[in-house]
Amino acid sequence: MSVMTREEQFESILSLIEENKWAQVQRILCVMNPVDTAEVIGEMEGDKMLLAFRILPKDLSADVFSYMDPDQQAQIVQSISNSEIRLLMDELYMDDAIDMLEELPSNVVTRVLASTDEQTRQRINQFLNYPENSAGSLMTIEYVELKRSWTAAEAMESIRRTAPDKETIYSCYVVDSTRKLVGIVALRQLIIAEPDTKIEELMNDQVIYCTTTDDQEQVAEMVRHYDLIALPVVDRENRLVGIITIDDVVDVITEENTEDFEKMAGMLPSEDEYLRTSPLALARNRLPWLLVLMFSAGFTGAIITKFQDMLQTMVILSSFIPMLMNTGGNCGSQASTMIIRGMALGQIEFKDIWRVQWKELRVGLLVAVPLGLINFLHLAYLKHIGVFVSATVALTLVCTVVVAKLIGCTLPMLAQKFRLDPAIMASPMITTIVDTCSLAVYFTLARMLLGL
Amino acid sequence: MSVMTREEQFESILSLIEENKWAQVQRILCVMNPVDTAEVIGEMEGDKMLLAFRILPKDLSADVFSYMDPDQQAQIVQSISNSEIRLLMDELYMDDAIDMLEELPSNVVTRVLASTDEQTRQRINQFLNYPENSAGSLMTIEYVELKRSWTAAEAMESIRRTAPDKETIYSCYVVDSTRKLVGIVALRQLIIAEPDTKIEELMNDQVIYCTTTDDQEQVAEMVRHYDLIALPVVDRENRLVGIITIDDVVDVITEENTEDFEKMAGMLPSEDEYLRTSPLALARNRLPWLLVLMFSAGFTGAIITKFQDMLQTMVILSSFIPMLMNTGGNCGSQASTMIIRGMALGQIEFKDIWRVQWKELRVGLLVAVPLGLINFLHLAYLKHIGVFVSATVALTLVCTVVVAKLIGCTLPMLAQKFRLDPAIMASPMITTIVDTCSLAVYFTLARMLLGL
Repeated sequence: MSVMTREEQFESILSLIEENKWAQVQRILCVMNPVDTAEVIGEMEGDKMLLAFRILPKDLSADVFSYMDPDQQAQIVQSISNSEIRLLMDELYMDDAIDMLEELPSNVVTRVLASTDEQTRQRINQFLNYPENSAGSLMTIEYVELKRSWTAAEAMESIRRTAPDKETIYSCYVVDSTRKLVGIVALRQLIIAEPDTKIEELMNDQVIYCTTTDDQEQVAEMVRHYDLIALPVVDRENRLVGIITIDDVVDVITEENTEDFEKMAGMLPSEDEYLRTSPLALARNRLPWLLVLMFSAGFTGAIITKFQDMLQTMVILSSFIPMLMNTGGNCGSQASTMIIRGMALGQIEFKDIWRVQWKELRVGLLVAVPLGLINFLHLAYLKHIGVFVSATVALTLVCTVVVAKLIGCTLPMLAQKFRLDPAIMASPMITTIVDTCSLAVYFTLARMLLGL
Repeated sequence: MSVMTREEQFESILSLIEENKWAQVQRILCVMNPVDTAEVIGEMEGDKMLLAFRILPKDLSADVFSYMDPDQQAQIVQSISNSEIRLLMDELYMDDAIDMLEELPSNVVTRVLASTDEQTRQRINQFLNYPENSAGSLMTIEYVELKRSWTAAEAMESIRRTAPDKETIYSCYVVDSTRKLVGIVALRQLIIAEPDTKIEELMNDQVIYCTTTDDQEQVAEMVRHYDLIALPVVDRENRLVGIITIDDVVDVITEENTEDFEKMAGMLPSEDEYLRTSPLALARNRLPWLLVLMFSAGFTGAIITKFQDMLQTMVILSSFIPMLMNTGGNCGSQASTMIIRGMALGQIEFKDIWRVQWKELRVGLLVAVPLGLINFLHLAYLKHIGVFVSATVALTLVCTVVVAKLIGCTLPMLAQKFRLDPAIMASPMITTIVDTCSLAVYFTLARMLLGL
């Protein structure tokens, strides 16, 4: 068990650096978790960061490097020698190397590629060509490959020899002579098996796999659904080309969720963490939808303009507009959020649309009636507002709630049907549409009930 | 590689059942992935489901059972004999057994507990007592335990013997004579190591661990941050009591994200999937916040009432209220979403509040100025609305956007400071507050600029 807490370690390292006690710094950095080592090195200033990185033993430095921020990685790569770059590239897993190269300025990428051998260079170029967010761009090539004719003992021997270079050895993949994926063996089975059992007998030929062009969201869903620790990736000819490990899938899940949160709040997805994003970049992500929504709110304004005589005669009606609009917006976004999330998790599909609408209709009524009733009593008896005005407001509220629920559940499903991202049909979009309906109902009811 | 696709397997099984060809059904169910087996069995009707479950070999049935829906699990447990329950409980991992027991009606739980032996019963009772969503309620007890004095060969021998009963063997935990957690060894290291190396030399004593009472959100964050495949859980005396595996962490991440989506849309978190939740339960989750927000929209209404003379004199002012309110709401929820998400991922903390506000002030201005300008030009030159009215609207818009950004980023951070869930400070809440500010600014500016 660790003797110092993480914070104590961080502090002691930073103060040792102040005192230039690098031998001690090295000793601590080597026993820390590589994730923490990357973090504490990342907190140092320019030259000290570089120095701290360079005193790491070679086998640790690649691991630590893969956990550093892209801009720190760039800083290091730009400062180390070509032979150091070559060593680093040899030690990095392919997926981490690709992640880094995708973030580096192109002149640095050229330099990195020039430092690697021909075969690695070709492979990297191939990886960089996979579409963004595809299984190909996410996978790594350091997996364990077995032959069906091997015995368990032979397989174990091969694993023992190659394990240090593999990203995971816990799922092993069986390929035939044409490199086609034919089976999977868990290390656990290999360990339990009699040494002379053939891989053929041990392997499971019902392999869950994906192809290089599959979207990362699909990949994450498969891994989550089947509780896998790694997913094999095949090319169009069913040849095994890589694996995707669970730690990367967890990052994908987090990233996809963040994207959904952002889209649902009417923003373009961000590339980086909030505190590391410039105000200009944030503004650029937020402005487009605000403009669209500002202009679409014009419809609502037009309705009010159309009925301005009515408002002039009975100006009190305008004081209920905010409440009606907010409640409508909230009801709509409640429904759309449930549906968007359900679709993202694969629990709701387009074929469920009637079931969903029927459910939302009932939920809408169950919510609308008490809201309307409470509202009516509040206005008529506590606020002493005329019964007819109170009734107009309460009835509009009931209609708004039901309509909002129906629009809120329908639009995201239609979006998916038309291959749009359902997440954009979230509260801002729904609110604007519901507002228009709500005001139209309001003025129509006012005309009917109040004779305006 | 599978010969039939998943859908073909599903169809062929269901049609074989129609024809009562149970021997063939059994053969297919046994080669399928247990997750799929659970799904296809779940699609069968009452008796057939039970029959299909019973023809599974004993070692597979517990695995399949753990992937079934809670109501189907309940149905099975209620229909099988006490000795079958005992067998099932013996085969189930502790975490899956606890998950099931938490969902069962209490009379069934009593029956299940009565079928297990004294030691298991005590242990189950202890697990059921861990607070909901704590590490204790999430962990399982089927982990590999090593002694520091063992050699790698002895450890491998022990693992080989006990592997079939362990949830994972890929991370092994070293405990001392008082069962205190002292180190961790990856199976990978054991496999590479010379057979006579002592565990003591192989193990890493910088163990990342959590305690039984830690919240599952914290647990998930640790596993995600350190790329672990399992996290050891200790009690207050630092004794190892269980582990949490990555597949359960992935489920926690998904669950916590769903909860945040729901809270941010002004709903109480749901217990089950949307399509499986009754309209009444959905309505119950949605009504409370709608009520709160409906009444708080009263403030906005009160402001309008206060300025109704002004509106009566210049009724056109009311037609811009929806646009101002919506834009303010959208700007606020953009900011709050970024902050809530950043805090959920541990990227933003309360100490960053000044940095965040300073950033949002700049983003606010960068967004507000173009929005205001476009709005002014649109109103004054395209819609031919008076310059002073247009200026009032545009200036209000600028103020609203900046204020909304500041409120949107500040409230979630304050919520966390006061140990409230930041997610409740999301768009519905922010919208209501921003509306009030926005209208106050609007009418004040109108009074100043239009002399009303």
